[in-house]
This record gives sequence, structure tokens and C-alpha cells, in this order.
Amino acid sequence: MFHGVVPPLCTPLTEDGEVDTASLARLTGFLLEAGVHGLFVGGSTGEIAQLTDAARDTALRTVVATAAGQVPVLAGAIDTGTLRVLDHARRAQALGADAVVVTAPFYVGVAEPEVRAHYELLHKALELPVVAYDIPSNVHYKLPPALLGELAQAKVIAAVKDSSGDLESFQRVLDGAAGSGAGVLTGSETLADLALARGADGIVPGLGNVDPHGYVRLYEAARAGDTDAARAEQRRLVELFAIVEVADRTRVGRMSGALGAFKAALAARGVIAHPYTQAPLLPLTDAEARTVAQLVAAAGLEPVG
Amino acid sequence: MFHGVVPPLCTPLTEDGEVDTASLARLTGFLLEAGVHGLFVGGSTGEIAQLTDAARDTALRTVVATAAGQVPVLAGAIDTGTLRVLDHARRAQALGADAVVVTAPFYVGVAEPEVRAHYELLHKALELPVVAYDIPSNVHYKLPPALLGELAQAKVIAAVKDSSGDLESFQRVLDGAAGSGAGVLTGSETLADLALARGADGIVPGLGNVDPHGYVRLYEAARAGDTDAARAEQRRLVELFAIVEVADRTRVGRMSGALGAFKAALAARGVIAHPYTQAPLLPLTDAEARTVAQLVAAAGLEPVG
Amino acid sequence: MFHGVVPPLCTPLTEDGEVDTASLARLTGFLLEAGVHGLFVGGSTGEIAQLTDAARDTALRTVVATAAGQVPVLAGAIDTGTLRVLDHARRAQALGADAVVVTAPFYVGVAEPEVRAHYELLHKALELPVVAYDIPSNVHYKLPPALLGELAQAKVIAAVKDSSGDLESFQRVLDGAAGSGAGVLTGSETLADLALARGADGIVPGLGNVDPHGYVRLYEAARAGDTDAARAEQRRLVELFAIVEVADRTRVGRMSGALGAFKAALAARGVIAHPYTQAPLLPLTDAEARTVAQLVAAAGLEPVG
Amino acid sequence: MFHGVVPPLCTPLTEDGEVDTASLARLTGFLLEAGVHGLFVGGSTGEIAQLTDAARDTALRTVVATAAGQVPVLAGAIDTGTLRVLDHARRAQALGADAVVVTAPFYVGVAEPEVRAHYELLHKALELPVVAYDIPSNVHYKLPPALLGELAQAKVIAAVKDSSGDLESFQRVLDGAAGSGAGVLTGSETLADLALARGADGIVPGLGNVDPHGYVRLYEAARAGDTDAARAEQRRLVELFAIVEVADRTRVGRMSGALGAFKAALAARGVIAHPYTQAPLLPLTDAEARTVAQLVAAAGLEPVG
Repeated sequence: MFHGVVPPLCTPLTEDGEVDTASLARLTGFLLEAGVHGLFVGGSTGEIAQLTDAARDTALRTVVATAAGQVPVLAGAIDTGTLRVLDHARRAQALGADAVVVTAPFYVGVAEPEVRAHYELLHKALELPVVAYDIPSNVHYKLPPALLGELAQAKVIAAVKDSSGDLESFQRVLDGAAGSGAGVLTGSETLADLALARGADGIVPGLGNVDPHGYVRLYEAARAGDTDAARAEQRRLVELFAIVEVADRTRVGRMSGALGAFKAALAARGVIAHPYTQAPLLPLTDAEARTVAQLVAAAGLEPVG
Repeated sequence: MFHGVVPPLCTPLTEDGEVDTASLARLTGFLLEAGVHGLFVGGSTGEIAQLTDAARDTALRTVVATAAGQVPVLAGAIDTGTLRVLDHARRAQALGADAVVVTAPFYVGVAEPEVRAHYELLHKALELPVVAYDIPSNVHYKLPPALLGELAQAKVIAAVKDSSGDLESFQRVLDGAAGSGAGVLTGSETLADLALARGADGIVPGLGNVDPHGYVRLYEAARAGDTDAARAEQRRLVELFAIVEVADRTRVGRMSGALGAFKAALAARGVIAHPYTQAPLLPLTDAEARTVAQLVAAAGLEPVG
Repeated sequence: MFHGVVPPLCTPLTEDGEVDTASLARLTGFLLEAGVHGLFVGGSTGEIAQLTDAARDTALRTVVATAAGQVPVLAGAIDTGTLRVLDHARRAQALGADAVVVTAPFYVGVAEPEVRAHYELLHKALELPVVAYDIPSNVHYKLPPALLGELAQAKVIAAVKDSSGDLESFQRVLDGAAGSGAGVLTGSETLADLALARGADGIVPGLGNVDPHGYVRLYEAARAGDTDAARAEQRRLVELFAIVEVADRTRVGRMSGALGAFKAALAARGVIAHPYTQAPLLPLTDAEARTVAQLVAAAGLEPVG
Repeated sequence: MFHGVVPPLCTPLTEDGEVDTASLARLTGFLLEAGVHGLFVGGSTGEIAQLTDAARDTALRTVVATAAGQVPVLAGAIDTGTLRVLDHARRAQALGADAVVVTAPFYVGVAEPEVRAHYELLHKALELPVVAYDIPSNVHYKLPPALLGELAQAKVIAAVKDSSGDLESFQRVLDGAAGSGAGVLTGSETLADLALARGADGIVPGLGNVDPHGYVRLYEAARAGDTDAARAEQRRLVELFAIVEVADRTRVGRMSGALGAFKAALAARGVIAHPYTQAPLLPLTDAEARTVAQLVAAAGLEPVG
């Protein structure tokens, strides 16, 4: 289940801050047509941390309905503590998710035995497979590669999504999980070809919302052993990734800068209706959005439909 | 409303991980009898980040009912994004809280204009006063003193709870909020006398669960201008605070170490039935709990009732 | 030897980047006339990290000659490794310093036993007393209060200069060193009154270059038990300390911002000839320097001589 | 000049802490025989931060004499401020170094314009080429890829040594320096094959002291386009790199753990006489050194000579 290109879907919003289900269905269809291998709803890029429980559910319901079983749907169950995560995960299970994606506990610092207990408790309480999500920039804790290896071998986790940006550590996760059957996915937009060359099973690129065809080509080339083609595609995507640097960072944080650019690009391509972001995240300014649209056009990405 | 000793209540649990409402009511009564001036339900010490929404509500309902209007009840509305906080705050409002306590957004990094928007949106949407909660160790963002001053002067926030441990910054918050009517509270267990000498309106000490009488004496002495008495009481409490260092920190995180010690001490004093903590936080070992009990006894704190 | 107001002297420079010995002698005389109790040459504020060995020596020689035994002269021996520090300390000893001030090792991370070995080796090899200098913002390591207490009790260190800004930890250093005879000094410009109230022996304020009379008054008031007078003086100095916020921080770092302001203020008061800073540190712009001069005048500080 | 395998030489010491010139000459010869393309004296691994100026000079003199012009010798000029670096660089120039390696300023925080000024001033003042050394773990500042690109294009720097461990940023350095003629070297022991595949000109691996033949094979395979052979060699070296995890990290820091292991391995192979480290760094315990020796033997590395 855990392989290939699995974009973390943006959550398009209406002017009132509600989930724009029509745009979300359109985005889902756009990704499926591009040939992605899975859909990840409710990641950081999906503004999971800003959406209410009701909005989280609406987004998941929409994607599950549109995907209609064509590819697996992974649902983020992101919260500060184990039982809070469990509540989200059970709702995701009821709504038809195929797996849940879970970070280490955050807000209060924890030690490794507590992180281990967190995943073990969730594994026991759930029927869905659990994907461990390593994203130290948000959680302020790096999941230890050795722990991930042990949890994979013990079948406590079914996959790892590594958004640490640290390839040395990623290699250790790959080695530790080898033979366990657990999938190992990278969240890197810009090192995906190297991660695949090292043995990653798949990619979860935020930029994959904007250019899913590019990441599918990259993945297929890597899988076919054509490292030159994979690298060329990667280089093209690295250039496109410059859109996340457009926003004025004294006005918005890193997340708004990236997410706002993805949404502006999707609006420019006609995939979603509006580039609104959820409070307190601020969207790009009009001028910034125009710059993003120019970069998107310069990358050869055309309006859809 | 925002002055004096306002302990952040621990949330006692049953063996099954449910809120132990009888123990929580007993703890509430214990604090009221000691003369505290407010009650803070759902802080970090209250395991807000580990409790489900249902458990958060049970805890708040229990304390509101026991307090019965004798002192104000502040409720933590701690979550990653603005609308998620708003959901919690509305539930707290419905359950009878007198104010809500709100951190900066967390999990995704934000810039100052986004933090400002966060508090402004909450202020507009709520009837309850909003207390800004500065706890960089958990949120990984320090609320800028200048921003807090502006929000206080604009009546967007009604008080500040400063758990940053940084007295230089605290002084700037005091100066910035001066004349606004906003309360300025320190979360420091060990510098409370200095904070009060500098003009703090109150204290929110986690250790106040264990020794509320001590903090009430400290506060009254400081208020009466008796700095020697305040300091002597503070020194005694600093020694007692050593209980948070008892836990083996390779086994548990900083939070479990502090919280586990508070609960072990409260159990040793007979205020609560059990020292259980909520997953994934681990309680002290039996040996550690015995050490805590000895330190509590050595500080002259006797079993209650 | 380690008590009272001990300013960390700025190192005035000529346009060519040489030590301006005439200005430095004038600054030394200015401080002595104000009644300071010691002189600290070669601290961070003295640009020790930017000065060549030759320039370090010139600065120390100048101050020792001007002080002529009226007050003790402490010399920074700041470098990355133990033997490098030893070389500096021996030169300082030969030049007439009364003590050397030494940080934990930096550049490569070390563990506590290595820090202990560092101070023990220096103590054994030197005849001068060693002052432990805790400045985590520069060294990226916080000297553990318990270790400082042990080193003080064992007479390995003769004093502590705490520039951590953390009063909770400072209290633990005071407690740990109590009875050892070691001096405990704070480097805080803005919490000096509180540190003295808690038992500090002295103050090492960078801002003391600019307003030594204010810090001497603060110290004398605190020593006489007049906390109101000490606090009033402190509040005045806190306002003056705003000069360190004048510089545009996208152009220069925190250090240049503070140091550049001290030098601009000293030039405005006529104590030193030029506000130049040592490469790569950049001085304030002319406009920034004028703002500093206005703040200095607004604080009632007049040109000297 | 800046390509291939350029190991950062360990500095062997006698029991008295002096540079063991016989062992250092032997190490130099061992590396040359293995076919390395350059020698880097005075890096972090060379204990530059712990060696006195005299010892730094002795080490450089020894290696220059032994190398006798067969390959270029790079000399670290590592210090906190620009003029201090300049002093070291001029001595290195006089001693026959072919280039100097320079970090951003450290100890006091600086802004980007100050870092730029630092390199520009050094470039103007020196005849030797300057290599920018990006090692955020030690310097606590990450050299911005865009700045490195600009400095390379302007011929201010002749090469970059990237020890940041961040391949995404490394790619941006490669892109930014493309066409400038500047060499781009990675300091990564474990991602060297990927860095070379991405276009790196060379490798500066600390582990290259222990197994220079392995890194030369890896480099030659990568250069010949044989990515499978490069990767196989890399995997073998990753396993050997486990020696840096042997030390008890409550006793010593990360640097002592790595460096102590390299020296223990070199002693086990008979290349150097003793595994002593320079104060305050502590060597491995005897038991740890035996474990390292076993790992070295298990990797098929035999005693030399």
C-alpha cells in the first residue's frame, strides 16, 4: 500500500473558511489522472493543524468519495497526545481511510520510552495500519531511526513518512526497516530521486499538488533504473520549488509561505477556485501570487481543463 | 479577576485513564481552603495536551461545580490553530469558565502578524476574556513583549500568563501592559517573589497544587511589602521544587518528571487517590514516588484530612 | 576582589582598526572616577573575539597602566580550547592582570566531565584566580549550576560571571557557591537589582561603559538595603538600555547592535574618539548613531570633560 | 586543486600533549599511498580548536614537508574573528599551505552582511585561495547557499567545504557555484556517493583517516559513473562509521566520540603511536578502544606496514 507518489493534499477553502469540497474533489481527480499511487489527506500541507474536527472530517470524506477505492487514502491523525490521536484515528477509520499517519507526541517534551508507548498503544487500539510521521520542524523531536526500525520489525508501524530532510538518518531508517515489509516514504520535494535511489518506496511531496505529473515521471524513471531521467525531472522540480520562497517572510511563517504558494499555483492552474488559507495562516499577497503564477507558467505547467 | 495565586490544577486519573472526578473535586476544595484566588483548569500541568475533548470537559465541569463561583475559573483552550482553539473556548464558555487561556499557534511556525491575527480573531469571536499564555518551551515561539503590550492596551487580551522563565522579558510585558487593566501573571515556581516585587499581579505555580498554603503566604507577604517573608517562603518552596528532579530523565521527559512528581506528592498527602498520568506520559516509578513523599514530608507538608 | 560594579570595557579603535590607546585610557579613567570596583578587559563587549593577540595585549597593558592598582583588573582569556586559553592567560598574567575570565570550551561540543577537566587544568597551571564565565548565547553551552558550585567549593574557580540571563539558574549558583568565598557576579544590565537582592556580589554590565555612575548608585543602594532606590535606578537604566535595539538587525547581528550602540554613546559623551568596531562587526550607521545620542541625552547623560 | 578525496588529518599527540610529528608524518604517508588527492590540516577533526598556535604550526609544517608537493595541502584558519583568522592564514601561507579553510565568524552572532565582509576582507588581504567551510554544528550559523554562490562567482572564495549534512542546501550550493570554477566538496562520511552523483568535486571525510583506500575507491567509482560500485563502497563505509557511536556520550561530547574513535582506529592499525586527544577532549576508554579495534578488524582493515 505504501509506495509511489502520495501527495499530501492541500485543502481548498471558500471565502468563509469552509472546506471547498468542489475544489477538493477536483484536486483529487487531477491527482488521480496524473497517476499518483495514493492520497494523503490531513498532512501539514493539508492544514490539519488549522482545521476544526468537522472540517478535517469533511475533507477526508470528500477525498475518500472521489478516490472511490482507486488508490489508498492515508489520513493524518495529528494531535498532541495519544488519546487525542486515537479519537481522530477512529473517526478516520469510520470515514473510510486506509491508514492513519501519526507524529510523535508534541507540545510537551517526551522521552523515547514514551514515544514508543504512544505508537504501541495506537497500534493495539486501531485496526488501521499506522504510519509514523517524522517531521522535526513541527514536532521539535526527531524520531530515532533505531526506534523506527524496531517498530517496523515488530509490525507496530506499517510505514514511515520521513520529512526530516536528513538523508543520513533516512538511510538508517531504510536499513532498520529492511525486510519488515514496512514502506519507507520521503517527504522531500528536492531529494526524491536520491531517496528513491537509496531504496525509498515512495514520495510524499507537497509540491506534488502542483505538478503531480512531474513526480510520477520522476518515480517511474527511478523505478526503471533510469537515474539520468529521474535526476533531470528532479532538477526541473527543484526549480519549480522556488515558489515557496516568494512570500515575504517577515509577514508570514515558513508554512504559510509554502502552502500559500501551492494554493496560489493550484488556483493559477485552475484546479482550485481560491487560494485562501485557514486562520491564522495568511495567504500570499496578490503580487506574490502573480509571481508564483509566472513561475508556474515558466515551468511549462498549463491551466487544466 | 486576574490576580493572586491561581494554581494550574493537576487532573487526577483513575486506573483506566478516566478523569477521577472525586479526586479532582477534593483537590479543588483543598486549594480553595488554602485561600487561592483563582483556578486554572487545562494547563500543561493539567495534561490538557493528553486529555481527549470529553475528558477536558469533564475536568472543567467538575472544577466549575466545586468552585461554585467562589473564585474565577480559567480554562485552557490549547490547540494548534485558531479555529480549533475557538471550538475549545466555546465549549469552555458553555461549561461556565470565566476566561480562556490561549497560547500562540503551534506545530506550524508562524510570523508575528499571524499571531496577532490569532488573538484578534479569538477576541472578536468570544464573549469570554482571553488570557495570552507564553510558554516557549512547549510552543517553540516566544510571544514578543511588545506585541503583548499592544494587545493588552487594545483590550484584545485581558491578561498574560508568562511561563517563559525570562524575567527580563517579563519586565517588558509589565511595562507594556501598564495602565491597560490587563493582569500579568507569572508561571514561575521559583522566582515568584521577584516577579511580584516587580509588579506581577499573580502567580500560576504548578507546585501550588502540592503546597497552595505556601504560595498564598508568599503572595500575601509580597502584597504587604514584606519582602523578607516573601523571600523566605520562596526559598522553602524552591527546596520543595526539587521533587521535579527526582524522575529518571532517560525514561521520561521533562513534563512527566514534573507532573509525575506533583501527582505523587498529592497522592502522598492524600489529596488525590492515584498518581496515574495520561498516555503517553509515564508516572514516576514506585521508588521515585517514595523519594518524592520523603521530600514532601521533609518540607513539613502533612497528609490532609 | 570580586564584588561591586566591574564594567566589561569596550575597546576603542582608530580608523585603521588599531586599539585607540588614548581613548581606552580615557575610558578607564572615566570608569574609575565613577567609582567602579573593578575593570574587566577582554570580554565579549571588549571585542575579544575580534581582536588579534597583539591587540588583546595592547588593550590589557593600557588598562593595567591606567588603573595603576586602584581596582583589580580582570582579563578575558577567551578561546576554543584549554591550551589556547592557557596561552592567553599566561600572557595576561605577565601583563599584570589580577584574574582571568574563562568560558567553557566552544566550537566543538563537550560533555560535563570535559568542562570540569578544562577548569581544573587551568587552575593547576595558573597562579591567577580563574573566573568561570557563563555565556550560553555565545558558547552554546550552559555551565551547570551544580558544577559551578562544586568548582567554587573546591577553590578551582574564584568567581562566576553569569551572563545567562536566567535568574532561576543564578539562584542555584548562589546557593551552590555559598560559603566557598567565591564571588558571584551577574552580567545582566536589566535585572541587576534583583540579582543583588538575591545575594549577588557584583555586576558586570556592558551598559556600565556608558553610565557607570548609574550602576554604582544602583549597587550602593542595593548594598545599603534601599531596594526602592535600587529599583528606581534600575528602571532608568532599563530605559537607557533601549539603545541596543536601535540598529537594523537585518544588517548587523545582536552583538554589533549592542556594542555599536555602546561605542556610539561613548563617542557622543566624548569619552572615546570614534565608534569604530572591529571586523567583521559593523558599526551603527550615522542615523542610528544620532538616535543613540538622542537617547543618551534624554537619559540625562551629559558630555564628559 | 579542489577535487577528489581530501581527508582532514587527525593530529597524533604524545603523552605530553605535544604533536607527535613522527606519527603525523606516517599518517600523511599512509594517506598519500592510498591515493588521496589533497590533505586538509587543521580541521575540526585535526583538533584545530584545541591546539595552540605553536602546535598548529608544527602540524602544518610536518604535513607540508611530508607531502612535498605531491598533492595540495589545505590549512584550517579557524578562529572567532576576521583579523584573528588573518593572522593564522598568514602563518599558514608562510609555512607552505596551498589554500586556507575558513568558517563564518563565531562566538558572537553576526548577520549576513558581516559574513560577506569577513570573506571579502580575507580574500583581499591574502594571496592564498580561501575555502569557505560550512559547519553549522560548530559555528551555530549556516552559510547561506545564495551567499556562497555569489562569493564563488565573484572569485572571493575558491571552494566550499560543506559539513552541514544538508543535501538540499548542498544542491543549491552546487547550482550557485556552477560555472564559477570553484570546487564544491562535501564533508559527509555517509552520503559521499550521492554528493558526487549530484556533482560534488570531492570529499573531506574524517573517516578517511582510517580507511582512505575505501574513499578513494568510492571516488574513482563515482567519477567513472559506476554508481553501483560507489554505493557498495559507501555502504561498507557507513558500517565502519559506527565506530563514532562507541563512546559513552555522558562522559564525552560528540567531537571526542568521533575523534577518539578515529585515533583509536589509527592506533589499532599501527598508523599512529597513541590515541591521545588534546585537552579538554577525552580519549576513548580502553574498553571502548577495543570495541573500535574489533569494528575496524571486522571491516577488513588490517594493520599497516
